[in-house]
Amino acid sequence: MSSKPSIPKGTRDFSPIEMARRNYIFDTIKGVYKKYGFQQIETPAVENLKTLIGTGGDESDKLIFKVLNSGDYLSKVSQEELISQNSTLITPKIAEKALRYDLTVPFARFVVQNQNDITFPFRRFQIQPVWRADRPQKGRYREFYQCDADIIGSNSLLNEVDLLKIIDDVFSSLFQGKLNYTVSINNRKILAGIAEAIGASDKLIDITVAIDKLDKIGVDKVLEELSTRGISEEAVLKLKPLFELNGTFEEKISFLNEFLSTSEIGKKGIEELETVFSYTNSLGLKTANLVLDITLARGLGYYTGTIIEVKVDNFPSITGGGRYDDLTGKFGLKDVSGVGISFGADRIYDVLLDNDLYPEFKGDTTQVLFINFGKKEQDYCLPLLFKLRDAGINSEIYPTAAKMKKQMTFANNKGIKYVVLVGSNEMESGKLTVKNMENGEQENLTINELITLVQ
Amino acid sequence: MSSKPSIPKGTRDFSPIEMARRNYIFDTIKGVYKKYGFQQIETPAVENLKTLIGTGGDESDKLIFKVLNSGDYLSKVSQEELISQNSTLITPKIAEKALRYDLTVPFARFVVQNQNDITFPFRRFQIQPVWRADRPQKGRYREFYQCDADIIGSNSLLNEVDLLKIIDDVFSSLFQGKLNYTVSINNRKILAGIAEAIGASDKLIDITVAIDKLDKIGVDKVLEELSTRGISEEAVLKLKPLFELNGTFEEKISFLNEFLSTSEIGKKGIEELETVFSYTNSLGLKTANLVLDITLARGLGYYTGTIIEVKVDNFPSITGGGRYDDLTGKFGLKDVSGVGISFGADRIYDVLLDNDLYPEFKGDTTQVLFINFGKKEQDYCLPLLFKLRDAGINSEIYPTAAKMKKQMTFANNKGIKYVVLVGSNEMESGKLTVKNMENGEQENLTINELITLVQ
Repeated sequence: MSSKPSIPKGTRDFSPIEMARRNYIFDTIKGVYKKYGFQQIETPAVENLKTLIGTGGDESDKLIFKVLNSGDYLSKVSQEELISQNSTLITPKIAEKALRYDLTVPFARFVVQNQNDITFPFRRFQIQPVWRADRPQKGRYREFYQCDADIIGSNSLLNEVDLLKIIDDVFSSLFQGKLNYTVSINNRKILAGIAEAIGASDKLIDITVAIDKLDKIGVDKVLEELSTRGISEEAVLKLKPLFELNGTFEEKISFLNEFLSTSEIGKKGIEELETVFSYTNSLGLKTANLVLDITLARGLGYYTGTIIEVKVDNFPSITGGGRYDDLTGKFGLKDVSGVGISFGADRIYDVLLDNDLYPEFKGDTTQVLFINFGKKEQDYCLPLLFKLRDAGINSEIYPTAAKMKKQMTFANNKGIKYVVLVGSNEMESGKLTVKNMENGEQENLTINELITLVQ
Repeated sequence: MSSKPSIPKGTRDFSPIEMARRNYIFDTIKGVYKKYGFQQIETPAVENLKTLIGTGGDESDKLIFKVLNSGDYLSKVSQEELISQNSTLITPKIAEKALRYDLTVPFARFVVQNQNDITFPFRRFQIQPVWRADRPQKGRYREFYQCDADIIGSNSLLNEVDLLKIIDDVFSSLFQGKLNYTVSINNRKILAGIAEAIGASDKLIDITVAIDKLDKIGVDKVLEELSTRGISEEAVLKLKPLFELNGTFEEKISFLNEFLSTSEIGKKGIEELETVFSYTNSLGLKTANLVLDITLARGLGYYTGTIIEVKVDNFPSITGGGRYDDLTGKFGLKDVSGVGISFGADRIYDVLLDNDLYPEFKGDTTQVLFINFGKKEQDYCLPLLFKLRDAGINSEIYPTAAKMKKQMTFANNKGIKYVVLVGSNEMESGKLTVKNMENGEQENLTINELITLVQ
C-alpha cells in the first residue's frame, strides 16, 4: 500500500492544538461535575450487541456499528442463510459485539450489573467517545465524545436544580459571560397533559415527534404533520396557541394552569416545573438564561419528566438531558428513577472557536528550547536542560547541530516562547543568552534566573 | 432481555476508585511527557482495515477486530463467495474498517497524512485504548490503554537518552523509591552483529524470535529452538556464552568488542549503546537500574536500533520501546527514523495496587455532605452548599429527608470526610455542626470556618 493513507469518513485526527482545546473543555466540565459530587466511571467501547439493540428503536439499531466475531465466523451460519443474503438476519450470528451508541445505555447496564456495590443515589459522570453509523455532515461525526452526568436512584427535584446549576457553571466558565445562551426546560408530563387536554392521549408519541421538529420545519409544517399522523383537526386547532405562547415563566404557567386544568398528569408537570424554577431562581444563575419552552420535546423516547436543552447562536443543541423513570428496566432493575445531562463537546468546541474564546495554552507546548551548536555546547547544555525539567518547565534541546535557521523555525512552529543560545562566551560566563520569541528581546541570565523567568 | 447483563470477555468497567487510580497513572505519565516537550494527539478508534493489516504479520492481522460495514453489506458479496464460507476472503468485502491494534501504526499513518503540517522532529504522545482479539487471561485484556511517546524525524541518540530519563522520572514518581525495577537496553544492531559473527546473518529473524523467548522457556529450550530453526550446531555453541554473560556494562561491552570484532553492524551497535549509556550515566538516574541485556530482543519486527524494556518484581514487561527506521514506509514516506516507548498502564496499575503505592484520592469524591432533615432545613442549607461549591469544594446535600442512618451510610460508603448537620439550633445560631467522619469529632463552625477547614 503506497497510496496516500486516510481515515474513515466521519472520523477525525486531533492535532496538538486541537487536543489542548478539547482537554480544556473536558477539564472544565470534569471540574464542575466533581464539585457537585459526581464520580467518574468508564465502560468498554465494545458492548454485547444484545445490550445495545432495542433501546432507542429500529432507527437507532441501524446506527450501531457491529464488530465482526473473530476466527472463522462464517462457519456458524448455514449455507441457506448465506444464500438468502439477508444482512439483518445474519448480522447477530456473525457480530455478537458492537460499539456503544451512547453513554446512557452502557451506564444503565453498569448500574444493574454493579447494583450491589453502588451506594444510591449514585452521581456518576462519564466522558468517552461513542460511535454512530450516521451520514457524516458538518458538525456530525461517526466517532465523537459525550460528557454525561446522571444521578440515579433518586426522584428528588433538587437533582434537576443541580444539573441546571452545573450547566450555568460550565458555560459561565467557558463563555466568560461573552455569549448569550438559553437553557430551555420543559416536562414530559406537560406534553402528556397537552395530549390529554386535546383528547389525543393515545397520540402522545406522534405529538412529541411532531413538536420536536418545530425548530427545523416551523409551526405550519408541524400542524400539517400532526394531521397526517391522525390527530383530529379540532385537536390540532387546540394545539396552535401553545406554539405561539410567549411571556414570562409566570405568564406561561398561568396559561398552562388553565389549559391543563382537567389533566392530573399535566398539573403534576406544572408543579414539578414550578419547584425546579423556584429553587433555581432563589439560588440564582450566573449567566444562563432559563426559559420554559413547552414545545421542547427532544426525540429521546425514555424521558418521563424534566427535559432540558441548551442553545447558543445558530448552533443546534449543545447540551441536553432529562429525567427517565425506567432506564434500567430493560436489564431487570425496575423503578429506578434518574436524571442526567450530556454536554456535546464537539459543538461546544466549534462555538468556542467561532467566538475566539479559548485561552492561550502555554503549558501545552515546550516553553524553552536550547539551540544545538555542536557537541561541546550540547554537552554543556544537557544538565541545564534537566534542571529546567526538574523544575517542572517543559523544555528540550534541538537533537542535532542543524542550521540555526532550521532550529529557529522549529521553535517558531512549535510556539516555543524562550530560546536559549549557548556558545563559548556563555559557557565561560555561565550566563545564558535567552531570546524571547514573542517580542524578540534578548537577555543574559543564569540558569536559576531563567527558571524564575519562565515560572 | 431480562437476564443479568454482562460485558464482552476481556473488557472491563472502571468504578470511581479504579478511575481515580488510572487517572493518577495517566496524569503522572502525561506530566512527564509534557516536561520533555511531547505534544498530545488522538486518532480515531476506527481505522480503515487496509491501514492496519500487513504491519505486524499474519498473527497480528488475526488479532484485529473488524467493524461490519453498515447497511445491506451482504449485497456486495457474490452468492458463490458466500457459499464458499471463506471468512478470510469475505472479511475485507463486508468489513472495511477495524479497531486499532496499537497506537504506533495509527501514528505512522497520522504522520504521513499530516506531514506538511508537522514540524520535525515531532515529539508526540498519545494515551488511548487499543483492541486485540487475544485470548483473555489474567493481566491480558481485549480492550486496554497504551501510553505512547515517540520522536519521529531525528536519528539523534539524545532522543534515546530522553526516553530513558522519562522512564526514570515516571517510575521514580509512581514507585516513590520503594520498588526496585530494571530498565534493560539492547540494540538490534548487536543482534544483527551476533548473527553475523556466528555466520548466520540470514537467520537474524529466527535468532531474534528464539532469543525473545529466553525469559519464558530458559536457555536450553532456546538453544533447542535455534537448532530446529536451522541454525548449525557450531553456531548455536558460539551463541551459548552470550546467554550467560554477566558483569558490569563495561565488562559486557569488552566481551562484545571481541565477539563482534568482525561485524561492522555489531560495532555500530556497540557505539550506539556506549553513547546512550554515557549520556545517561553522566546526567544520572533517580531510581532506575539501567542494565545492558544483549538477549533483549522484543518481538516487534520494526525495531532497527535501540531496544528498551522495563521490568519490576515478577510482572511481565511494564514498559517497552525502541528505534525504528522505516515505520512510515508502508504509507509512502521513506527514510524517517523514530524512537518511542509505551507504558503499559494496566500492568502498572496492578504493580501499584499490589504494593499499596496509591496516594489517597481526596479530591475525587465528595468532601462535604449536608444531611437533609426536611424541607425547612434543606432550604436553609442550599445556599450554603453552593457557597462551598463556588469555593471549589466538592459537596452535595442528600436529596431527600431519608432516615439519618441511611444518610450516614451514604456518607461512609462514598468516603465523604465531613458531614454537616443543621437543625433548628444551627439555623438560629448560624453555626453548623460539622462531623469529621474519619475521627468522629464534632465542631460548631460558621460556613466560612468550614470552607477554611476543608481547604
